Amino acid sequence: MMRTRPLKVALLGCGVVGSEVARIMTTHADDLAQRIGAPVELAGVAVRRPAKVREGIDPGLVTTDATALVKRGDIDVVVEVIGGIEPARSLITTAFEHGASVVSANKALLAQDGAALHAAAIEHGKDLYYEAAVAGAIPLIRPLRESLAGDKINRVMGIVNGTTNFILDKMDSTGAGYQEALDEATALGYAEADPTADVEAFDAAAKAAILAGIAFHTRVRLDDVYREGMTEVTAADFASARNMGCTIKLLAICERAADGGSVTARVHPAMIPLTHPLASVRGAYNAVFVESDAAGQLMFYGPGAGGAPTASAVLGDLVAVCRNRLSGATGPGESAYAALPVSPMGDVVTRYHISLDVADKPGVLAQVATVFAEHGVSIDTVRQQGKDGEASLVVVTHRASDASLTGTVEALRKLDTVRGVASIMRVEGE
Amino acid sequence: MMRTRPLKVALLGCGVVGSEVARIMTTHADDLAQRIGAPVELAGVAVRRPAKVREGIDPGLVTTDATALVKRGDIDVVVEVIGGIEPARSLITTAFEHGASVVSANKALLAQDGAALHAAAIEHGKDLYYEAAVAGAIPLIRPLRESLAGDKINRVMGIVNGTTNFILDKMDSTGAGYQEALDEATALGYAEADPTADVEAFDAAAKAAILAGIAFHTRVRLDDVYREGMTEVTAADFASARNMGCTIKLLAICERAADGGSVTARVHPAMIPLTHPLASVRGAYNAVFVESDAAGQLMFYGPGAGGAPTASAVLGDLVAVCRNRLSGATGPGESAYAALPVSPMGDVVTRYHISLDVADKPGVLAQVATVFAEHGVSIDTVRQQGKDGEASLVVVTHRASDASLTGTVEALRKLDTVRGVASIMRVEGE
Repeated sequence: MMRTRPLKVALLGCGVVGSEVARIMTTHADDLAQRIGAPVELAGVAVRRPAKVREGIDPGLVTTDATALVKRGDIDVVVEVIGGIEPARSLITTAFEHGASVVSANKALLAQDGAALHAAAIEHGKDLYYEAAVAGAIPLIRPLRESLAGDKINRVMGIVNGTTNFILDKMDSTGAGYQEALDEATALGYAEADPTADVEAFDAAAKAAILAGIAFHTRVRLDDVYREGMTEVTAADFASARNMGCTIKLLAICERAADGGSVTARVHPAMIPLTHPLASVRGAYNAVFVESDAAGQLMFYGPGAGGAPTASAVLGDLVAVCRNRLSGATGPGESAYAALPVSPMGDVVTRYHISLDVADKPGVLAQVATVFAEHGVSIDTVRQQGKDGEASLVVVTHRASDASLTGTVEALRKLDTVRGVASIMRVEGE
Repeated sequence: MMRTRPLKVALLGCGVVGSEVARIMTTHADDLAQRIGAPVELAGVAVRRPAKVREGIDPGLVTTDATALVKRGDIDVVVEVIGGIEPARSLITTAFEHGASVVSANKALLAQDGAALHAAAIEHGKDLYYEAAVAGAIPLIRPLRESLAGDKINRVMGIVNGTTNFILDKMDSTGAGYQEALDEATALGYAEADPTADVEAFDAAAKAAILAGIAFHTRVRLDDVYREGMTEVTAADFASARNMGCTIKLLAICERAADGGSVTARVHPAMIPLTHPLASVRGAYNAVFVESDAAGQLMFYGPGAGGAPTASAVLGDLVAVCRNRLSGATGPGESAYAALPVSPMGDVVTRYHISLDVADKPGVLAQVATVFAEHGVSIDTVRQQGKDGEASLVVVTHRASDASLTGTVEALRKLDTVRGVASIMRVEGE
């Protein structure tokens, strides 16, 4: 059964993930060969700094000319773990043109240019796989795209960024403020020197675009995803959350509208009940909750980043793509036939937790309640706490559209008796 | 792109799962056609009781002659949701012989005759898919077989039977005894009139055999699985579990030995710490925890049974098998190349919680401790409680082989001062 001519793999990038991919390809070569039906051979490794010592990698395979490597013509699979838009995009396109299939872990690129890359893959009859682009080692793309292919997915809600989950978990468990928790995450290597991509939720937004596209068979661009970072979350917010039996997570939420005719994708901090399975996801772990018509509620949990976990996802794709090449088939490519419109954030319907600083005098609550009513936002609970002539008013609403809520808040800010809007946070998972 | 000639599906069985499969095939026909690349048509439904009214199914498709249906020759995919060994086994074999691929939800059959069925599939170049056979709607077979195909799985530990999890959860949360909790499960439809397959863990053992086979690329027969039901679990056991910060779950555990040279598969009640993700799996839900070299710890969670969830898994397989037929390929079949020996239960190494009824007099603890030491079982903690001249002694051990523990317990029973061994339970997940 076993073919003896090896499948040739070009590895683009040999950092934290790439070096693990190379290591496992070497140490598990026999197992990979058995599972694929042919040996796989590391045919070249493109790097930026060739002088760096890379344990276990034949120096003769190392090159700085990634383009020449993907153009060789004898490469079966290109594994792209460089990250970023260029040169990754050009290299992937070139790979397809020269007959290779591609495995990528590049969420930013796939969220931005997924449609063009999928089109190039189809044009050349090749595979583009990217399990590692979302939630690291957690099998998620394949379950959504294949296991649930006969079901109708209505919601994907997840913790898809380990750095911010580590920070929020730390704030929750120790009462630390944002900066203190970020400093600890940086010291422990969970946050990069410039944490913007994580804490401003650019990373999570890219993953949300990819997940929404797969879940709803609809093209969802990065620009379609509403994005709100978590740098404004305070210790006071966590105290408020605890008061209502909740914690705070940075969530990526992809939803089908109740009428099924449109979808939304968003990333923002939100309160979720402590009883929700996502509430107990600790540290840098990721977890994604999926709701579908027939399957009901599913959850996928695991390490969302790191060299070895990401390499596990890359290698799972590598085995699948190699098997497809041997059988002359391709796996399921992009499925965007549903082409549902992506609605703006204003159309999203959810609940809200609003903290107001108000004057502590009679009639204030009536004024505030009137503003909510005028905007069609129904109030669930109100809690008022007075202190030194001032009072804080915490309002939790029933489900309302984001547009209605925004209108409500604008009107509240104009009230003389409202000194300020201390925080607005969405409440999910109920 | 879309082929117009439909793929023809024969549905064997139209009970709780089959009727949902038929319903979704009808209501989601357009989506399925888009995702597959060709329409799928329900070409026949084999049932035992043709007179029963089946909403939404054309009576002209219903037949009692399942064999004739699978022999028609124009069937692309046979969906087998009859269950049990015969006639399911013969029908599946006949289906392969007549050119069809097969999607099955039949755990008992796959655990008992998986090797022969896989061989028949390969002989005829057809697919045999069975995501629905383990843990209902939870994508598990595909993640293990495909997503983790480049990784080395070391342990699969899960709650794979919803009925027993419902009973144990009820005992835990209400203090009810086994019979009372079983009665409630029966009244609510979670347990069948004859609950033997669930409570004696035959169902879980079949799933463990399937999971171990896939995880370790090794043929694991049902007879290789150590099986212990949960009918002996008492309210006192739950009290003991709580005393050590644990709860009790019926676990299916498939493990690679520390030296990698053999595997074990077993199903039994066990204590697990409340902090373990499996401890918080409530009601009839299932969850499976997977540990691998590179990915680390993953968990998959969702509804483990029920018509619609199981149908979701069947339909995901149906889409994959139909896609394979269109491309002329087959998916990954059985992978048993590793052919690792399956070790007996005596070789399993774990921790134990043992409750002894002993005489309340000096020297008893020394006697008991000596027996443990003589059998090479190291004690972690001992707790002694006296009452009316009798005492109970609770011993929690460090990791030891099951054979050593069995030897220890036999020797303890022979001590005059030991009145009885009240319970022995394994402690997992630490």
